[in-house]
Amino acid sequence: MQTPKKIAIVGSGLVGTLLAIYLKKEGHIVHVYDRSPDIRTIKFSGRSINLAMSNRGWKALDDIGLGDEIRKIAISMEKRAIHLKNEPLKFQYYGKDGEAIYSISRGVLNKKMIDLAENSGVEFFFNSKIWDVTLETATLHQGESEKSEWTELNYDIVFGADGAFSRIRHRMQRQSMFNYSQEFLNLGYKELNIPANQDGTHKLDKNSLHIWPRGDFMLIAMPNLDGSFTCTLFMPFEGENSFDSLTNRADLISFFTEHFPSTKEVIPNLVEDFYKNPTSYLVTMQCYPWTFNDKVALIGDACHAIVPFYGHGMNAGFEDISILFEMINKHGDNWQTIFKEYQESRKPNADAIAELSYRNFIEMSTKTANSNFLLQKEIEGWFSNKHPEKWIPLYSRVTFSHQPYSEALAIGDKQNRIMQEILEIDKIEEIWDTEPIEQHILALLEKE
Amino acid sequence: MQTPKKIAIVGSGLVGTLLAIYLKKEGHIVHVYDRSPDIRTIKFSGRSINLAMSNRGWKALDDIGLGDEIRKIAISMEKRAIHLKNEPLKFQYYGKDGEAIYSISRGVLNKKMIDLAENSGVEFFFNSKIWDVTLETATLHQGESEKSEWTELNYDIVFGADGAFSRIRHRMQRQSMFNYSQEFLNLGYKELNIPANQDGTHKLDKNSLHIWPRGDFMLIAMPNLDGSFTCTLFMPFEGENSFDSLTNRADLISFFTEHFPSTKEVIPNLVEDFYKNPTSYLVTMQCYPWTFNDKVALIGDACHAIVPFYGHGMNAGFEDISILFEMINKHGDNWQTIFKEYQESRKPNADAIAELSYRNFIEMSTKTANSNFLLQKEIEGWFSNKHPEKWIPLYSRVTFSHQPYSEALAIGDKQNRIMQEILEIDKIEEIWDTEPIEQHILALLEKE
Repeated sequence: MQTPKKIAIVGSGLVGTLLAIYLKKEGHIVHVYDRSPDIRTIKFSGRSINLAMSNRGWKALDDIGLGDEIRKIAISMEKRAIHLKNEPLKFQYYGKDGEAIYSISRGVLNKKMIDLAENSGVEFFFNSKIWDVTLETATLHQGESEKSEWTELNYDIVFGADGAFSRIRHRMQRQSMFNYSQEFLNLGYKELNIPANQDGTHKLDKNSLHIWPRGDFMLIAMPNLDGSFTCTLFMPFEGENSFDSLTNRADLISFFTEHFPSTKEVIPNLVEDFYKNPTSYLVTMQCYPWTFNDKVALIGDACHAIVPFYGHGMNAGFEDISILFEMINKHGDNWQTIFKEYQESRKPNADAIAELSYRNFIEMSTKTANSNFLLQKEIEGWFSNKHPEKWIPLYSRVTFSHQPYSEALAIGDKQNRIMQEILEIDKIEEIWDTEPIEQHILALLEKE
Repeated sequence: MQTPKKIAIVGSGLVGTLLAIYLKKEGHIVHVYDRSPDIRTIKFSGRSINLAMSNRGWKALDDIGLGDEIRKIAISMEKRAIHLKNEPLKFQYYGKDGEAIYSISRGVLNKKMIDLAENSGVEFFFNSKIWDVTLETATLHQGESEKSEWTELNYDIVFGADGAFSRIRHRMQRQSMFNYSQEFLNLGYKELNIPANQDGTHKLDKNSLHIWPRGDFMLIAMPNLDGSFTCTLFMPFEGENSFDSLTNRADLISFFTEHFPSTKEVIPNLVEDFYKNPTSYLVTMQCYPWTFNDKVALIGDACHAIVPFYGHGMNAGFEDISILFEMINKHGDNWQTIFKEYQESRKPNADAIAELSYRNFIEMSTKTANSNFLLQKEIEGWFSNKHPEKWIPLYSRVTFSHQPYSEALAIGDKQNRIMQEILEIDKIEEIWDTEPIEQHILALLEKE
């Protein structure tokens, strides 16, 4: 156990709340501030993408005994269900038997976790706007507006878990030697909905992440407990097939009829939802350093906001907590060293998952519709089964292992170079599961 | 002429002041705001690097008839003077006969330009702090402090010429779809001084940019009108040879004695200056977009702060003005289109000079001490003399031409690939100026 400190966490999202539970268990006084109302008292925003919890996320929950409680609100998805136009549905398994990612509604999970945190003794202050922080003293500045009188709130340690547009980071950003970048994709997203059948069952296969890959744009759907699916349409803001081009009802309907004919019966409220729900932005935010002395640390999206295409935003944020507590267990009360090693350990991995996530839009929207890519996945699966110690596919490393993201990325790049060479072999689609190919891959692995 | 507008420029630095002169001449009402006192009333900061004015900068001045006035305070430098340890001084010419860059003191130039702007009718408001801007209406918010009462100042158009930490950009940065990055080098700089001889002459060759290249660190010196040189020491913050390692007088003196023995007699106030002058940071800042409708535009360092190793910060900022006025001449009163084409034209070139500047530290600090590099420069010069239409060296394209930076960078990369191949030829140091080598380069140029 550490010496108890008075700790503030800014942000009551998933990462802030789980961090609060961890710190409370360690014996600290923990206050969580959020500028928004208590999420348990409000309707959802209509701008959420369902979460895909995977092993890194589960580890952080299981380590503190919450995994089983959360599993009750999760639905396993062991495969992609790929909806090509005028072709039968294709399935592509994510991993080996028993490996799956888990669909969870962000809102449902967040409410649940705030309940759990409150029960463990964490104090929440909602509708409480933090505008600034004095880094040297871990003092928060709270007030009604940016220009109003501010109250000083003194702490021993402050965590910024306040997301991609973090106010805590904003203060750090004004220091010299603070590296920072934010880059928006020219791609927005919109939440849509597939309601449950009358009898409460799912209209599509429940245990799949559904994708309608269309190149520059795509639709995905992830299951909810009540039989519905939360859908997300990813599409450019401008251009031929874009949000800008769908300004009226008729264009919208004809766009869906042309590109997503199979969704016609399952998305009954298309028009209403489309124009009611906001179009949201996608940003990659990277920065460094993440900490200030032994006083202030950033965590989750506040220091590494990524695009959602690998489903790892929350998983990476939860893993931040695992690594932070690994350092706490190692260094006791030495917060200076804890923070230093936490940021040094996490930064290259945050950069790697940012890169992987960025790349994965192409994989989901384009490659899943490409027969060469599906063949590559088959060859990898086949070879990996024969030589599990020699080949774990990139997706499995990222999603089903706890290997640092940066190592997974490096090995994935190497594997991809090998696969590109294999795919150029004459008639590979006929001979891929043969002894000579197996030997060829083994030889390439040796060489690299 | 355009329809007169009421225009505010935030920032009275070199770019803001020259832009003011241009806009005033076009018939607009022009107000320039600066949070600092009038530079004409204060002592210099001790943190300046002398400017190296080159063709892009001169063009912007000449086009409005100011070139000759400014030439009076400039000293030509047609070459690098390279001070290796225990070796005779080497000279490396920048361009062809008559081509030179020009050393100008930043402070002297800025004062002069504010005088010129005032004489032309521009109004300056010093000690006037602009904290925010309302983009939609081009309204500035001015006040004593960030939390004080603010006064609204209404304009038709606002230019943010307020440097790397621009407040105007700061507001734009909070919008969605605004891409932004700031990256600090792990390298600081400090101003030092070589005073004039008693008779007012220069202690070193006057018409050279002097470099003491030492790999991870370097010293440079640029001449002033009064016979002195402004020196700049570039060095890492941390590590073996670093600012952190020179915390006491004895270490500092022994460091200079070891690494810069030839400076001993010429920098008499080393210790005093070193500890009096601040250590400054080096940042590359990139962003996009640069404009908001027909209301607000960023210019100069406010939208593209670069490291100083190509000597192009001011030159690039002045070229922004040339391009802006190219668009004004094309589109008259259509400020929406002027701003749109200005940013689209400049952004790739700003990115290119950022990249070139970043790379040039290696060239200056390491390569100028490398005989292979000096040979490469000789071969390039020789070949370029024979085929001036086929080969303009990168440095000349950047510094002595008005070719867009992005094109210069692309061609420079191609030329470098060719030179690397040539340098691998056996005994190249003996045969470089022969017909077969000339033919070989010509063939490679064809091939690329």
